[in-house]
Amino acid sequence: MDASIVATASVAASSAISATASVGATDLASIISTVVPSIIASALPSIATTTAPVAETIVKVPLLYELTAAFFGGLSGATHADERRMDISGIVVLAIVNALGGGILRDVLLQNHGIAAFLNWRLLAVALAAALFGFFFSSNYRKLKRPFLYLDALSLGLFAVVGADKALSAGLNVIPAVLLGVVTSVGGGMIRDVLCSETPQIMRPGTLSASAAVLGSSLYVFLVTWANIVKPLALVASVLVTLTIRLIAVKRGWQAPMPVHLTMAPGRPWKFVRQNREAESGLPPTLAEMDETDVTEDTDS
Amino acid sequence: MDASIVATASVAASSAISATASVGATDLASIISTVVPSIIASALPSIATTTAPVAETIVKVPLLYELTAAFFGGLSGATHADERRMDISGIVVLAIVNALGGGILRDVLLQNHGIAAFLNWRLLAVALAAALFGFFFSSNYRKLKRPFLYLDALSLGLFAVVGADKALSAGLNVIPAVLLGVVTSVGGGMIRDVLCSETPQIMRPGTLSASAAVLGSSLYVFLVTWANIVKPLALVASVLVTLTIRLIAVKRGWQAPMPVHLTMAPGRPWKFVRQNREAESGLPPTLAEMDETDVTEDTDS
Amino acid sequence: MDASIVATASVAASSAISATASVGATDLASIISTVVPSIIASALPSIATTTAPVAETIVKVPLLYELTAAFFGGLSGATHADERRMDISGIVVLAIVNALGGGILRDVLLQNHGIAAFLNWRLLAVALAAALFGFFFSSNYRKLKRPFLYLDALSLGLFAVVGADKALSAGLNVIPAVLLGVVTSVGGGMIRDVLCSETPQIMRPGTLSASAAVLGSSLYVFLVTWANIVKPLALVASVLVTLTIRLIAVKRGWQAPMPVHLTMAPGRPWKFVRQNREAESGLPPTLAEMDETDVTEDTDS
Repeated sequence: MDASIVATASVAASSAISATASVGATDLASIISTVVPSIIASALPSIATTTAPVAETIVKVPLLYELTAAFFGGLSGATHADERRMDISGIVVLAIVNALGGGILRDVLLQNHGIAAFLNWRLLAVALAAALFGFFFSSNYRKLKRPFLYLDALSLGLFAVVGADKALSAGLNVIPAVLLGVVTSVGGGMIRDVLCSETPQIMRPGTLSASAAVLGSSLYVFLVTWANIVKPLALVASVLVTLTIRLIAVKRGWQAPMPVHLTMAPGRPWKFVRQNREAESGLPPTLAEMDETDVTEDTDS
Repeated sequence: MDASIVATASVAASSAISATASVGATDLASIISTVVPSIIASALPSIATTTAPVAETIVKVPLLYELTAAFFGGLSGATHADERRMDISGIVVLAIVNALGGGILRDVLLQNHGIAAFLNWRLLAVALAAALFGFFFSSNYRKLKRPFLYLDALSLGLFAVVGADKALSAGLNVIPAVLLGVVTSVGGGMIRDVLCSETPQIMRPGTLSASAAVLGSSLYVFLVTWANIVKPLALVASVLVTLTIRLIAVKRGWQAPMPVHLTMAPGRPWKFVRQNREAESGLPPTLAEMDETDVTEDTDS
Repeated sequence: MDASIVATASVAASSAISATASVGATDLASIISTVVPSIIASALPSIATTTAPVAETIVKVPLLYELTAAFFGGLSGATHADERRMDISGIVVLAIVNALGGGILRDVLLQNHGIAAFLNWRLLAVALAAALFGFFFSSNYRKLKRPFLYLDALSLGLFAVVGADKALSAGLNVIPAVLLGVVTSVGGGMIRDVLCSETPQIMRPGTLSASAAVLGSSLYVFLVTWANIVKPLALVASVLVTLTIRLIAVKRGWQAPMPVHLTMAPGRPWKFVRQNREAESGLPPTLAEMDETDVTEDTDS
């Protein structure tokens, strides 16, 4: 166990150094971008790969799914507001933010490509309908939360992939594209939590959903830019991976990893050992720590 | 009472369904957009209606009013910062955010139309002057709060209408236009509250101001897009309605409605009854609930 | 002491009035913009001044410095997340936000000029490397905080100047340009604090860093737009001033000023006196007040 941590830490350190120096990284990227596709192309039937530029096509979530996701995202936001004893304004705000906030944030960061949530009025209308529905029935919805877990897990992957694809099509590099995919997927929940003056749920211990979105978004970007897989196939693969990880995480109670505190072993500066958390000086217990027992599993669409 | 709630709930449910299905809604809209104008046109003198495209003209708040509103918005933000024992940086930040934040947020969401608050330097200068004034005199200003209520109520309607009009002129649909009107009007106060790590005042029980802005913004959009009323007339009507509702709400202590918890009557699944809040399971008292007695009336410009 | 406060207060009041009336201010500006350059031009060697339009050239931070600053900004964000017991998602989010958030916010507010942090993938890569490094070694980094103070103080001035310059080059007026300079410099830390559901550190008493950034940003804008100083010289001067003020502030424990509560002297309405804070009515102790003793010096990059 310790050995693997040490190894990963070394990789982290050297990766940090190489990235900072910014030499070699581009060479590595160019090697990957020529070798990987040829390996994959020889392993897959020719219909699964393509040499068309990434920006030429763009994958879209079917409108009916987008509307369904917006409705249940809005309903979840409305329930969230009700649990915090907000009035109808709070319910409407959190419904809109939870349903459409991630996409709006992505489009603001993309600039010049329009705010998708404003270009099709049905999206806002459905979020408002969800707010109205939640105003009357949020207490019933709460009991049905478990079934909606599957929809949430599906949306987590789908919006991450679609967001990353939109960013790639706008000409962004792979790293910003992955980031904007994740923003699309979890950004709405983050704004929702900030508006409740809470630290965003995805940043607190107890869940594993942002990490699943990062994985799905990265996989998609890798498949379409480096492996030349056709977009629909890459989408299905990435969404399935995200969905599976997310569902297993919920069933098994997986949590995203907490920071490891490595420190030099006394007398052996070349070896890093795990630090005893309690023995650390200058690290007072935080408010967050006192809340840690309250952290509950949520689907944070 | 219960009957009307049940009726509204049914409307909510059916509206949700029709919006999700997105069939019929457009037909209804097209019927409204042909029938309503002809009724209104026959009832009003011809000078009050127009057939010009909505985007052709744009209504603007006179600069002097904009500057006055920015000054008192800034002063209110500075007082807010002082009450929270912030230093001069906090006073300047909250003055700018409270005075101009709503318009800045609207312009960020509109994209490509420039940030109005940056294009005329006088707006920022006035907000800074208000911060400086508040730095010295905020304790005096606090006593004068009541008189400024009228200015706040006027601004609430005026900025909602102007924001909605700018969105319409940018080619947005009616629903996003209403939303951006409300954002212009209450967005600054929301950012201010988030920066104070508080849940935005408009989302908490105890006031009725966002709802008034929604009404004014919706009325304006309805009047100019469906009823073909000339913009100045629509502006005056919408602002007057918002102002009146807001002032009555303050005088009479009206509050925006809280969620209704409907549940199926035992044995009669076709009938919904109000749920007993205390009897609900799985709904622990929230932190917000403990603060509920502290909620005080404010004008939240 | 009282006399100077009274004088400044009068200036504040009259400045507020003149700005609101918006007469005379432009004349004053035009006088300054013709007189000041001629005085400065006669005092400096001709190589130090220029008559080229401000937007013609643009100053840039060398990429290597930008990457170094992004790495340590990211590391500081990761440490921040670790101190609040966040998981790896929180560490990555705060690393990115702390390293690049200010520039992203500036670019969102500038519109149409691209998000610099997304156009060069190395910036995000370095922030991610810092997050990974912080995941393993944040407890060691914490002890090295003091040495990084110099880097933070340098970045404070440098990013304020570069942000203001980018805004000027985009055609913005001097006041928005100063504002966007400050946003570039302290915006990342503000978003970081909001995501931790804390009031941004720069707005709370106990530090003097936003004020130093305002000074550096203003000085730069003054030098290049009104004094016609060549940009590299103006940059060095402004950064040095910010750096010096910031370092002295840390060493001597300078704090940004708190609001002065002036009130009319009883019976002498033309004279303002400092109000006794404790005697003020209607000003209950705030939550922030109870935290005041906890406010500690930090470098808030």
